[in-house]
Amino acid sequence: MGKTLIFGHKNPDTDSITSSIVMANLEKKLGNDVEACRLGNINKETEYVLNYLGMEAPKLIEDAEDGTEVILVDTSNPGESIPNLENVQIKKVVDHHRVALTTPYPLYFRTEPVGCTQTVMYKLYKENNVEIDKTIATLMVSAIISDTLLFKSPTCTDEDKKVATELAKIAEIDMDVYGMDMLKAGTDLSSFTIEEILKLDAKETNLKDKKSIIAQVNTASIDDVLTMKSELEAGMQKIIAENDLDLFMFVITDIIESNSKAIVLGNSANIAEKAYNEKIVDNVIELKGVVSRKKQIVPIMTENA
Amino acid sequence: MGKTLIFGHKNPDTDSITSSIVMANLEKKLGNDVEACRLGNINKETEYVLNYLGMEAPKLIEDAEDGTEVILVDTSNPGESIPNLENVQIKKVVDHHRVALTTPYPLYFRTEPVGCTQTVMYKLYKENNVEIDKTIATLMVSAIISDTLLFKSPTCTDEDKKVATELAKIAEIDMDVYGMDMLKAGTDLSSFTIEEILKLDAKETNLKDKKSIIAQVNTASIDDVLTMKSELEAGMQKIIAENDLDLFMFVITDIIESNSKAIVLGNSANIAEKAYNEKIVDNVIELKGVVSRKKQIVPIMTENA
Repeated sequence: MGKTLIFGHKNPDTDSITSSIVMANLEKKLGNDVEACRLGNINKETEYVLNYLGMEAPKLIEDAEDGTEVILVDTSNPGESIPNLENVQIKKVVDHHRVALTTPYPLYFRTEPVGCTQTVMYKLYKENNVEIDKTIATLMVSAIISDTLLFKSPTCTDEDKKVATELAKIAEIDMDVYGMDMLKAGTDLSSFTIEEILKLDAKETNLKDKKSIIAQVNTASIDDVLTMKSELEAGMQKIIAENDLDLFMFVITDIIESNSKAIVLGNSANIAEKAYNEKIVDNVIELKGVVSRKKQIVPIMTENA
Repeated sequence: MGKTLIFGHKNPDTDSITSSIVMANLEKKLGNDVEACRLGNINKETEYVLNYLGMEAPKLIEDAEDGTEVILVDTSNPGESIPNLENVQIKKVVDHHRVALTTPYPLYFRTEPVGCTQTVMYKLYKENNVEIDKTIATLMVSAIISDTLLFKSPTCTDEDKKVATELAKIAEIDMDVYGMDMLKAGTDLSSFTIEEILKLDAKETNLKDKKSIIAQVNTASIDDVLTMKSELEAGMQKIIAENDLDLFMFVITDIIESNSKAIVLGNSANIAEKAYNEKIVDNVIELKGVVSRKKQIVPIMTENA
């Protein structure tokens, strides 16, 4: 039997990447033969974290051999995972999203309704009496800051805040300073093509029977991103045509002001107007106070689809 | 918002009943407004446990009002739960079986590949620093003894044994004496009709495309149960006809010798012959060393279906 592979979702964010590293460290401490992996390129925010720690990214994989033992972190959604998930043996799942798969066999499955996988991971370390060192603490707290946008997201729970505060001490970081630097690093789109920007954090979502993509980027200035508006629109139209989409929503989130605007295209664009009771003007809709796709976009858009 | 209802599976066994009581106690200690419930009659084994503790059975319910908050224990399988599971809000799941449902929302979902839900529950008490008193310990250890047949089942893990040993101390019981008395109480079929015996612990299972029921009873003497053979066969034939089954397997497990025999009826009865490389003689097949439906029957029968 080869190593157990640990990975998060495709289009990995800071939580998926750090959770695979942090879970691998825990499993190794428990005597298990595992390897941290990733299913896609590292984003700029995660790059900031890894550079800060002088750490390599986990191994890039596209799939796993049939029969391999795997541990899933930060998602249980087969649509966001390796293509042959049905043919591998899932040993564990640690997550903070909905339960998105069933299994024909018993396994360790732990998901909790908190803002970040690392908040659950922190508990696993405590429960197994494994020490959280400075590096592990930095990885963990970075993911919590990332997923909760420095505690401003409505997905953030008291537990996330408490755990992050504890971890920041071990990591010896000032959360506001380090956190804002890290989030800002993630807003740097300069090295990406339009096609790459549209895919950076894109989730395929069915809004009832409407085939949709809701993509999101963080920024310190929405206007800056909107200087690329016509190029973004052209790219979105291409993806809509190629994938026969009813809707493509590209959400631009101001991480400083905690607001968003979205470019909305497709035959079902009017779902957004109904959902937010706002007019789409020149393909753009204001999403006041919206920062969380999971809590403030997907459910409301689904309801109005 | 009304109370959060806590319940296990239909045809409740000792683990389902005690887990709903033990989970309710934990939730109350954590300040939550909950009620322990059950989805069916108490069996003789569970009755022994509740009588030993002078304790009432949880409240019998058939469903829950739409929108009610619920906590599932000992199963996540919608087919074994309330009929309107899709319309209630599942807050938590604590289990030791396969993941059998997906949810559109995040929740606390904890299943571990151990022999009994109570082994997981024990950890929840520890993690939340809630004391396990003598009554709670007795409920917990009873379920572990029940699910693992006093550690003889292949579903039993080292963790189950360790937790049970710890709990037996708090419960102040001799596990072998109390456990065997409890298991024997569960083998008393004298007060049941044939129809009731066939339903006591019956699981509807699809063996690939073969519609099947695999029922199980524990006994101290297989021959005693087989004195009712012709009545059992008539009852099974009736259920096969009414439910258009391909197979009905009635497994009689000797809890002292750790062996089973099964009455096998239906057009697909030969699956059992292939699975165990044994002849069915007069509708009965020998299942040497078999005690666990989950580990030693369902997978092998499925493979040979």
